[in-house]
Amino acid sequence: MEASSQTSIVFVGAGNLATHLACALAKSGFAITQVYSRTAQSAQVLADKVGASWTTHLGELLPDAAIYMVSLKDDVFINLLPEIVAGRQHALFLHTAGSIPINIWKDKVERYGVFYPLQTFSKQREVDFSAIPIFLEASDAAVMHTLQQMARLISSRMYEVNSDVRRRLHLAAVFACNFTNHMYTLASDLLKQNELPFEVLLPLIDETAAKVHQLLPEKAQTGPAVRYDEGVMNKHLELLKDDDAASEIYRLLSKSIHRRGQIKN
Amino acid sequence: MEASSQTSIVFVGAGNLATHLACALAKSGFAITQVYSRTAQSAQVLADKVGASWTTHLGELLPDAAIYMVSLKDDVFINLLPEIVAGRQHALFLHTAGSIPINIWKDKVERYGVFYPLQTFSKQREVDFSAIPIFLEASDAAVMHTLQQMARLISSRMYEVNSDVRRRLHLAAVFACNFTNHMYTLASDLLKQNELPFEVLLPLIDETAAKVHQLLPEKAQTGPAVRYDEGVMNKHLELLKDDDAASEIYRLLSKSIHRRGQIKN
Repeated sequence: MEASSQTSIVFVGAGNLATHLACALAKSGFAITQVYSRTAQSAQVLADKVGASWTTHLGELLPDAAIYMVSLKDDVFINLLPEIVAGRQHALFLHTAGSIPINIWKDKVERYGVFYPLQTFSKQREVDFSAIPIFLEASDAAVMHTLQQMARLISSRMYEVNSDVRRRLHLAAVFACNFTNHMYTLASDLLKQNELPFEVLLPLIDETAAKVHQLLPEKAQTGPAVRYDEGVMNKHLELLKDDDAASEIYRLLSKSIHRRGQIKN
Repeated sequence: MEASSQTSIVFVGAGNLATHLACALAKSGFAITQVYSRTAQSAQVLADKVGASWTTHLGELLPDAAIYMVSLKDDVFINLLPEIVAGRQHALFLHTAGSIPINIWKDKVERYGVFYPLQTFSKQREVDFSAIPIFLEASDAAVMHTLQQMARLISSRMYEVNSDVRRRLHLAAVFACNFTNHMYTLASDLLKQNELPFEVLLPLIDETAAKVHQLLPEKAQTGPAVRYDEGVMNKHLELLKDDDAASEIYRLLSKSIHRRGQIKN
């Protein structure tokens, strides 16, 4: 199958990732023909953005789209899968989840694959899809060819990886994004206690991210833990003495930084 | 004292912060007249950048500079302090450390203060000082006036804070920068195991930092922990089963994210 502006895509799911991906594909000329979501509002908002129809009933899914792009929470996906494929076994089925293996489709449909953009998506923010790496996996070479064509139209970076590697990528993303954001939250909590605005940390946060474009993170590490400055660390723990959770995080991460610093990079 | 291009400054210390601050002050017209460092190479490199003389002996510190800017590791600073001030009690003494209280100077010199730029500095990277918040503390109103004049020449953002608040800011910076960078390192380790280049994470890292310019971090939190997706978290822990340290960090941070998500923001 040649992916082109004539290719019709039904989106099953209208969350953050689905919204950004559907918009990027629509902008590249794909015809998003329908959006399904359990909640009418989500379905309608995305459908309006991409000029599609919408439904909240899987029984009303269009029968004849070229591609069904499934972007649902993992457990919901597994529950709804039989209904999504019913009567459409000859279409191409794709999902966008880092942690769900490609084999979930096996023996249910003939042609299937994974289209996983590695990014954090919020509805409030525009993202530049062209820089987002897209990780592809396909049931056969013809499907991979189609996925590569699709990916190339919206991004300049694509990689073919298997389900095991994709699962590890997803885990790496939890550290680099979700856990990082939580470090920002804990820092924000400390500032609030002193009535300082969070924005005083933004230049530091930006530079910490910018640095690892130039240096690998193990070379970019600074602070009391990597130089094992016990004086400063003890003063910090004293400040955290009424917050057991933050103290434990401080201790564990300092220990991990110190140990990691001693490993030859 | 009016701070101006005629103001002579001796730098005691030639580390990353000292280097960037001395260059920014020199660019704004201050006369950096001498650089001290324990290691000749560090002293010489910075001295060459700012057109100063240099020394590795505190006994050779110029006697008559208007300002002595001390930027040493905390324990070194405390050890060298008597020698730094000896015979120079009428100059203005400043230090740049987040975790050292202003009172370290008390009863040793008459006029003193703190000039603390909140940023992570590496010699390999240029930084734009104008966006860096500078936190000031002074022994008296006249010294504060001088510090504000100096700060205004190199940055558009300055705050007057006491030593206690500055100590907490420094702790917040450990979370927002040092611990964040360690999250990048742990993610990088996971990619290495799969022979994927670290750069695949850069768009995600950049967006995670960019997001908190628009949303407070507690509102920007995404991922399996905040939605308490036990299926995904258990799969991740299974992947980390041979790495006790990373497993413990994963568990502790997921628990903290989940608990923080339940607190009314």
